Amino acid sequence: MPTLLLLRHGQSAWNAAGRFAGWVDVDLTPDGEQRAHRAGRLLADAGLLPTVLHTSLLTRSAWTGAITVTAAGRAWLPVHRSWRLNERCYGALEGHQRSAVRAEHGDERYRAWRRSYDVAPPPRSPAAHAELLCDPRYRDLSPEQTPRTESLADVVSRLLPHWEQVLVPQLRAGQVPLVVGHSNSLRALVSHLDAMTPDEVPHLNVPTGMPLVYELDDDLVPVVRGGRYLEPEAAARAAAEVAAQGGDSGSPPS
Amino acid sequence: MPTLLLLRHGQSAWNAAGRFAGWVDVDLTPDGEQRAHRAGRLLADAGLLPTVLHTSLLTRSAWTGAITVTAAGRAWLPVHRSWRLNERCYGALEGHQRSAVRAEHGDERYRAWRRSYDVAPPPRSPAAHAELLCDPRYRDLSPEQTPRTESLADVVSRLLPHWEQVLVPQLRAGQVPLVVGHSNSLRALVSHLDAMTPDEVPHLNVPTGMPLVYELDDDLVPVVRGGRYLEPEAAARAAAEVAAQGGDSGSPPS
Repeated sequence: MPTLLLLRHGQSAWNAAGRFAGWVDVDLTPDGEQRAHRAGRLLADAGLLPTVLHTSLLTRSAWTGAITVTAAGRAWLPVHRSWRLNERCYGALEGHQRSAVRAEHGDERYRAWRRSYDVAPPPRSPAAHAELLCDPRYRDLSPEQTPRTESLADVVSRLLPHWEQVLVPQLRAGQVPLVVGHSNSLRALVSHLDAMTPDEVPHLNVPTGMPLVYELDDDLVPVVRGGRYLEPEAAARAAAEVAAQGGDSGSPPS
Repeated sequence: MPTLLLLRHGQSAWNAAGRFAGWVDVDLTPDGEQRAHRAGRLLADAGLLPTVLHTSLLTRSAWTGAITVTAAGRAWLPVHRSWRLNERCYGALEGHQRSAVRAEHGDERYRAWRRSYDVAPPPRSPAAHAELLCDPRYRDLSPEQTPRTESLADVVSRLLPHWEQVLVPQLRAGQVPLVVGHSNSLRALVSHLDAMTPDEVPHLNVPTGMPLVYELDDDLVPVVRGGRYLEPEAAARAAAEVAAQGGDSGSPPS
């Protein structure tokens, strides 16, 4: 049965500080590194050994991936990196405290920016964008591919080629990909896998550092919608914490 | 100027224990992990930032590579893994104490097995070889490519396609490859780069965890034969320790 393993990077310094990170390259905390190690042990203990690693071009994803596969005894896996797995670009919100954004702009806008399907935050400043364009890891991206801000729908659009052109062929060839992504790149992938409606998407929260297993049928449709976490109770608690970040109730925008 | 960065993995458990490892997949020690981290900081401090990472399929190389590039701020580098960068297969010596091998077989044979250009140790047992053939990371290798034992000349032969077909095109394209290899895969590469004679090879020792920089001319010939270590004095001391392992004087086989 085709199996896809998903993992959000371990806690980053800005997860811990309650700040929007997006494409800003924030390091893991020691707790995030430990979680990544634990995720690898959980996968190995469950006999769920990946055969190929996918990460974004952000340090917190790449380093989580390295720690996780090493802890699973597979440091030597081939690695596929792609900007298409990057976190959503949070535009002008990047670097700002979640709670301050909510206090300044109000609950409704905060929730829409954070959890709606098709609302994007205001764009990055020209200076912040210029810095991104100079980053060597994004040298091969066209100006149109380098975002100034993104809605979740935008993330789905730029993520789908990675799903269709890379992950689907690997799954059909019997590979077991481990995708180490971010809150919103994994929300985008899961919303596509589970064929979610835009109304369902705001309720979807992915906790850091907890392996999520998707077993798929021959049409690559999930056998169980939503997949299964290897630690279901801890993941449910952690997902509720993600929903509540910045004082948000996790309810959809009204 | 084309620049090639070489790094032997950090200390492994069997480096520390004085045992031949070869293709046996031995983990790094905590000291080896710290050395890998330090190597990454040294590279970044020297402004020698790799643009692509190469590792073998052995954990001690892959994990050293991940730690080093992350410490250098480049966790997100593309990764090229190849069995051609693996340590020399030490055949029937794998797992054995260096000092016991030397005591049992005598100085001359010990030195020839360890440091000569064209003498291979006795082959692995059929059981040990069968285990290797079942390892998923070597699934794509033909039986002829999966060694039972290797001389350094054999390592040069299987390493050269990686140099010619992968590293040379990258260097010509302006990339800065970081090759995280092993004692003998790096000795093989260096002996080729420096056009060493078989008489010179026994004196060549590569210490663990110390970045070695090769600046190359337009013909990809080293500007300085032997390259340069970022920590030359520490590297010279450590290379002398490598030469003396198992009680060997480091002198060539008589």
